[in-house]
Amino acid sequence: MRPVYIVGIGQTPVGEQWERSLRHIAHDAVIPALRDAGVERVDALYVGNMLSGELVGQEHVGALVADFVGLRGIEAYKIEAACGSGGAALRTGYMAVAGGLHDVVVVAGVEKMTDTIGKDTTAGLAMAADQEFEAAEGVSFVALNALLMRRYMYEFDVPHAAFGHFAVNAHHNAAGNPNAMFKSPISLETYRKATMIADPINLMDSSPICDGAAAVVLASEPVARALRNGRRPVRIAASSVGTDSLAVHDRRDPMKLEAAWISSHKAYQQAGVTIDDIDLFELHDAFTIMAALSLEACGYAERGRGVWLAEEGEITIEGRVPVATMGGLKARGHPVGATGVYQVVEATLQLQGLAGRNQVRDANIAMTQNIGGSGATVATHILVGE
Amino acid sequence: MRPVYIVGIGQTPVGEQWERSLRHIAHDAVIPALRDAGVERVDALYVGNMLSGELVGQEHVGALVADFVGLRGIEAYKIEAACGSGGAALRTGYMAVAGGLHDVVVVAGVEKMTDTIGKDTTAGLAMAADQEFEAAEGVSFVALNALLMRRYMYEFDVPHAAFGHFAVNAHHNAAGNPNAMFKSPISLETYRKATMIADPINLMDSSPICDGAAAVVLASEPVARALRNGRRPVRIAASSVGTDSLAVHDRRDPMKLEAAWISSHKAYQQAGVTIDDIDLFELHDAFTIMAALSLEACGYAERGRGVWLAEEGEITIEGRVPVATMGGLKARGHPVGATGVYQVVEATLQLQGLAGRNQVRDANIAMTQNIGGSGATVATHILVGE
Repeated sequence: MRPVYIVGIGQTPVGEQWERSLRHIAHDAVIPALRDAGVERVDALYVGNMLSGELVGQEHVGALVADFVGLRGIEAYKIEAACGSGGAALRTGYMAVAGGLHDVVVVAGVEKMTDTIGKDTTAGLAMAADQEFEAAEGVSFVALNALLMRRYMYEFDVPHAAFGHFAVNAHHNAAGNPNAMFKSPISLETYRKATMIADPINLMDSSPICDGAAAVVLASEPVARALRNGRRPVRIAASSVGTDSLAVHDRRDPMKLEAAWISSHKAYQQAGVTIDDIDLFELHDAFTIMAALSLEACGYAERGRGVWLAEEGEITIEGRVPVATMGGLKARGHPVGATGVYQVVEATLQLQGLAGRNQVRDANIAMTQNIGGSGATVATHILVGE
Repeated sequence: MRPVYIVGIGQTPVGEQWERSLRHIAHDAVIPALRDAGVERVDALYVGNMLSGELVGQEHVGALVADFVGLRGIEAYKIEAACGSGGAALRTGYMAVAGGLHDVVVVAGVEKMTDTIGKDTTAGLAMAADQEFEAAEGVSFVALNALLMRRYMYEFDVPHAAFGHFAVNAHHNAAGNPNAMFKSPISLETYRKATMIADPINLMDSSPICDGAAAVVLASEPVARALRNGRRPVRIAASSVGTDSLAVHDRRDPMKLEAAWISSHKAYQQAGVTIDDIDLFELHDAFTIMAALSLEACGYAERGRGVWLAEEGEITIEGRVPVATMGGLKARGHPVGATGVYQVVEATLQLQGLAGRNQVRDANIAMTQNIGGSGATVATHILVGE
């Protein structure tokens, strides 16, 4: 396998883009990424997307986006793994370049979730869960996460307020990210007083419904060398996907994100690193409970202790394990199929020293983790600045 | 890149499987494929599927199927390229093994299109077309193909009846395929008298709505060698995807399937073959017009002459270019996201001399071509019996 480099990045602001259709939003990330890379030729485009069919009435977005960004003719298709679609698309692009099948590919993640007249976004998101045994019984996706959070609070004797530090950190960091959806910091009091959505998950435990797209251009080493634009080369040192049951009740231990454990530990091995080597961790904080479980599965905390990392200040930009450094899913926003690619764009900015006031000092190695459903698909990537 | 072998195949009968849900149908193809291969370990599962969200209310089918067939934990996700999803999934599996990322992978295609209470299958299929410029104007997917067929008849002065030979050939061959949906041969008179669906496309020009799944196990050469089960080794000598605009009106020449031309000619180059070397061609006869256009794009006939190959008897099992040898999309059936994998399963049976009364004599090289939409994504694979 060959080394794979990130040679270009692009992203749209996250928010409600009522004036832009799905293809326009994808365009607004892919074109800047191609310009950033300065490539003249691209071999393939892989698009991460979950809900184009349900919310936009459009499947077949691989060819659609390829054509609309001026790449008609190239290999293109869509990758879907619920909210982990972006990470799975990156995995596909990585395979294509690492395996020597292509020299330059674009990986885009795109989702349009607002201004979808007559469509039920909550029902769409529930398609990430087991249709026959969860969704058909009326449990929404947020309700499933609420069950996990309630169990965590009960089993480990954790008060709800402890999770607030994840939300406060995310909003604090989003304030320094011009592309974030929410740029206002919040306090722990705001968190405690937030509207309840699905008890015990409140509004500030939850990531928002929004539109957005992000894109990265991947290239082989010779191509990356020829393109050098003065910025620090960033290499994908590990790429890994693991799975678990869709239905939470089917898991051996609902308090352990088994797929995150599999995926992260494969990634550590592939990259030859331990968690102590990792300078920042873009985790999948779709709900605060997911942030806690993710930290535990990846080895940052013992079972039932992930939430306390937040309270102890370890997750801030100056902390031991900076997470959600550009706002995370909670405050940058979570356009579901795009999220996995946003994480990688943001980690690349960190490794290149371009994260502005959110810069993690001496950032050399970053991990991104994108979760599909309530943990059934987990894609982990480790990036190294060279 | 490493050679990639097909070491196991599985398929379900195509038809209305009201008693089986999406995951069961996938299971019924994947388990036989794994047994056929005799593998103990699988590294990844790639699932081709188009309409699980729209028709079944289920996304995230990669992890779902992986878990249900006993492969929980492995890398798994869904690939979507409209009716070309199966071919695109095969491309992903091929990349994973050819590139050295995995040694053994399963590629499955699955679709459940019947018994979908309250869902509109026609509206679902229209998601393969351009939502904003075609589907939203009320044109269904069959209507788009009708426009192409009408244009072809006008431009090349072809009577409708000439297309009947494609349908007659497909039904004739399906009668010898125990997994086909329609096992009754039809006559040219049946074709001429068939109910009009979207003028000039009649019922016998059209493939049926149905359920089904097919699966192949791919392996690297060392693994394939160790598994030898007495059957002829089949190697994937070429794997290629090309694209075009989704909207028919955006094409430079609507009478040329540009993506099929790109994809097939790349495949010839990769495999080092010409069309004269190819012993059978599993083409994408979702509508008879697509069969004619596909033959032309792949170089078997001049522009406007593809339809006459059928009339001249060239496409039968004994002919120069046998197509739809197990019934094709028309009569084996077209469970859309599964079709590309069915084609490869059938081509493998032909190369292994296991096609029963439908056996093409001395079949050594086979081509499969899976088309998404009205030609926007085309995946071509060339298989060689060794």
